[in-house]
Amino acid sequence: MTRSTEETLLAAIRTIVDYPKPGILFRDITTLLGDAKAFSLAIDELARPYGDAVLDKVAGIEARGFILGGAVAHRLSAGFVPIRKKGKLPHETVRVAYSLEYGLDEMEMHKDGVAPGEKVILIDDLIATGGTAEAAVKLLRQIGADIVAACFVIDLPDLGGRKKLEALGVPVQTLISFEGH
Amino acid sequence: MTRSTEETLLAAIRTIVDYPKPGILFRDITTLLGDAKAFSLAIDELARPYGDAVLDKVAGIEARGFILGGAVAHRLSAGFVPIRKKGKLPHETVRVAYSLEYGLDEMEMHKDGVAPGEKVILIDDLIATGGTAEAAVKLLRQIGADIVAACFVIDLPDLGGRKKLEALGVPVQTLISFEGH
Repeated sequence: MTRSTEETLLAAIRTIVDYPKPGILFRDITTLLGDAKAFSLAIDELARPYGDAVLDKVAGIEARGFILGGAVAHRLSAGFVPIRKKGKLPHETVRVAYSLEYGLDEMEMHKDGVAPGEKVILIDDLIATGGTAEAAVKLLRQIGADIVAACFVIDLPDLGGRKKLEALGVPVQTLISFEGH
Repeated sequence: MTRSTEETLLAAIRTIVDYPKPGILFRDITTLLGDAKAFSLAIDELARPYGDAVLDKVAGIEARGFILGGAVAHRLSAGFVPIRKKGKLPHETVRVAYSLEYGLDEMEMHKDGVAPGEKVILIDDLIATGGTAEAAVKLLRQIGADIVAACFVIDLPDLGGRKKLEALGVPVQTLISFEGH
């Protein structure tokens, strides 16, 4: 990625102070999504490492991962598979629990969302502690997916998510990062 | 749209009987999203009426409208703006209430998600009674958007959503329809 692309993406992120609570700098990606040039660049950069029709599926994590994942799937002529909060998918699912700041939640995907051995990339907007992405990796592996990489627009490296995924043997691709979070 | 494209899209939809409750035929679009060829065709057909860089924004309704809307926005070199359930957007929003089967819910978008006069298409996976789409139209108009069309993969014409939107002056584009719902 060129320096100019990186600067365009960084400039398109809005930082909201003290959201959702005091002391947090929230990195708001909606301004990047709404900027046609920045959005186009982000999708092209996320897709760049993968040739056309090399991947079988792009798996997107609800909800912002749906926006990016749908676009990357179309860009790469791949299918799209949603990873959702529990209770939202109509067919037979696999389910995994994961930790939130307070308590547990569960996420699901359709059992037949990915066939065993299919090549998949996982997409979300941001990786922080990596708890959500780790749960998604477990789901995908449970049904036999070959996870080629996990891809995020934003990395918050101080929160350790990248290392958590790499320790699971999943290559991680990110476009921009905010340190000192 | 050719007959062959229509048949491909129809064949890619999975119908789930008695979901979410007895007597309902649920049209499951996840099988279409996961089929690289059908997904690609659907995005290209949704985008077809609009030239590259003619639209400013594609507005997607949470959550399945995010998958389709992100892909169509990228395809058309437009920005993407999310219309979300209440309480999920970090910046200043406009909000509208709408009826569910039991009671009311609210949806929101960022006040600066679309600038006054910008050309926007609205996207979701399916139009049934049109209550959600009507609420989205109200939100977009509240902030001055020029709504070029509302676009859906699936129409359930017997439930009247298309007519509801057309009565508001919004052209409606759908790809396939299931009658007798």
